Amino acid sequence: MARQADSPLSWGEFELIDRIFAPLAHGFSGAFDLKDDVAVLEPRAGHELVLKTDSTIEGVHFLSGDPPETVARKALRRALSDIAAKGATPAAYLLAVALPASISIAWIEKFAEGLRGDQAWFRVALAGGETNRTPGALTITVMAVGWVPSGRLLRRNGAKAGDHVWVTGTVGDAGAGLSLLKKEAALEDIAARDRLVERFRVPEPRMEFGKALGGVANAAIDVSDGLIADLDHLVEASGIRVEIDLDRVPISPELRALWGHNAGMRAVSAGDDYEIAFTAPASAVDEIAAAASRTRTPVTCIGSVIDGSAGVRVLDSFGCELELPRKGYRHF
Amino acid sequence: MARQADSPLSWGEFELIDRIFAPLAHGFSGAFDLKDDVAVLEPRAGHELVLKTDSTIEGVHFLSGDPPETVARKALRRALSDIAAKGATPAAYLLAVALPASISIAWIEKFAEGLRGDQAWFRVALAGGETNRTPGALTITVMAVGWVPSGRLLRRNGAKAGDHVWVTGTVGDAGAGLSLLKKEAALEDIAARDRLVERFRVPEPRMEFGKALGGVANAAIDVSDGLIADLDHLVEASGIRVEIDLDRVPISPELRALWGHNAGMRAVSAGDDYEIAFTAPASAVDEIAAAASRTRTPVTCIGSVIDGSAGVRVLDSFGCELELPRKGYRHF
Repeated sequence: MARQADSPLSWGEFELIDRIFAPLAHGFSGAFDLKDDVAVLEPRAGHELVLKTDSTIEGVHFLSGDPPETVARKALRRALSDIAAKGATPAAYLLAVALPASISIAWIEKFAEGLRGDQAWFRVALAGGETNRTPGALTITVMAVGWVPSGRLLRRNGAKAGDHVWVTGTVGDAGAGLSLLKKEAALEDIAARDRLVERFRVPEPRMEFGKALGGVANAAIDVSDGLIADLDHLVEASGIRVEIDLDRVPISPELRALWGHNAGMRAVSAGDDYEIAFTAPASAVDEIAAAASRTRTPVTCIGSVIDGSAGVRVLDSFGCELELPRKGYRHF
Repeated sequence: MARQADSPLSWGEFELIDRIFAPLAHGFSGAFDLKDDVAVLEPRAGHELVLKTDSTIEGVHFLSGDPPETVARKALRRALSDIAAKGATPAAYLLAVALPASISIAWIEKFAEGLRGDQAWFRVALAGGETNRTPGALTITVMAVGWVPSGRLLRRNGAKAGDHVWVTGTVGDAGAGLSLLKKEAALEDIAARDRLVERFRVPEPRMEFGKALGGVANAAIDVSDGLIADLDHLVEASGIRVEIDLDRVPISPELRALWGHNAGMRAVSAGDDYEIAFTAPASAVDEIAAAASRTRTPVTCIGSVIDGSAGVRVLDSFGCELELPRKGYRHF
């Protein structure tokens, strides 16, 4: 078959797998170099299997102009973030890519480069996958599998009255990055702008810190819909009430520069953070500090769990409840 | 939020999960009623985990007018078919659905009905999933997990000279069903037409027979790209040559009625059969017959494996090699 254009459509489906994806599966014997129909994985003694799927869609989770490397990394990291927030360790992933005709070979080669780097960084293997053409939007679906020590999964439903509420890193940066990319906002400081955009394009799942939370936290969730929206899932599952001090919510200097005194309110309802929000008994503070230091993960106590009907209250510095314009990002 | 239109977009994302998908996950404790971020699965002693992902895309794997129930069943069965052809047993699946705005609530309710029936039939649980909106084509990605006794996976690469080549069921029907739906062909006999269309819309993965092949077959593959195309994968992986007698390829009466004397040639290069092609030593014939009878699976010996450079030859009744117009369906 003659190679005509710079498009994967000019390659056969199997050529695409052989040239682009099979090299990503080398070194993981259960992937059979992507030359069979399924992958196999040896169970890990004393562990349960953890499963998570996440689709990353052009126009929804990334923008058409985003670099292929960051699209790949975001697709993988979104799934890994859920594994991390549950105290589990990822082992391998499957990849389903639906390609529109407009995607070039150069694009997909860079996409694979992005995956290669992250596979090494997070020590996960490509176990299998498929490519399809699509008449629609570029869609990347990652199914990640991992292991958690039996009975140690960090659930949403374990929060208890008296717990402290914590969050890793800073929140709101990714949402600000998206606003900047969409030109809904502007920032003169180019370096600050780039840092916010990078947070939107390449999240940093808190893999090591998540693992350290096993047996320490009572409940945990990854912050993807927005801090309040995700805490809302947690309080609903746990049947408790959470109060957040807005002034304690960790905000980056870049976000502060962009949104000024609105930064906090915007931060708690912005999506795509991929930080971990969790609750833990007050007595766990030393363990949390030690885990944060060992894994070099910033972590901030932002509020507390109290008895009461399920809900999240956000308080200002006077302890008054703030009205939130919206809870977070919703796909529908 | 007011319910305005008959569209999932008028429901919240979480309402959609609660109302439509969570009921499908009841009864599988590791799914947590879809109220957590991941699913967990207990390992099975003496077994390896088997992983498979398959995307089913509107305009590629099904037509816009196909009933929602059959779209759901095809999406699930395509993944189960790969698990079956490897001698494994499916346990659970994750579902990623990307919905365009045109999909109605009634459509997605019927889609869920299709899944519900097949889950019971195949004894697999919905373990988790996600819904997203998409500006593009309706895309359903199924990630199936199953178990295979350690070391018993049926690979593509085990075929040996002297093996017989077998295939389950009949081939070519689904491809004919697609041609009929696309009005590239016509058949007066409405019942026959409906049977061919049904084969396109709802494949019948050979779950029980596939399991029975463990330790009996030397190599196996599910027939999804087309009999010759898939045997081509098998001979490449095994480094052997296969000769198929076209006259022995099992053809349904409906296909014969549609294509007449061309039925065989069309059948071996049509896609979407989801039968199992496999090779086994001549000595295994009694075991294969017993498995076929026990699982009520029609199975036909269609050729043999010989030494020689990797390739598939199709022979006519005089033993002469036939030229094939195309090997099967390719996505690119």
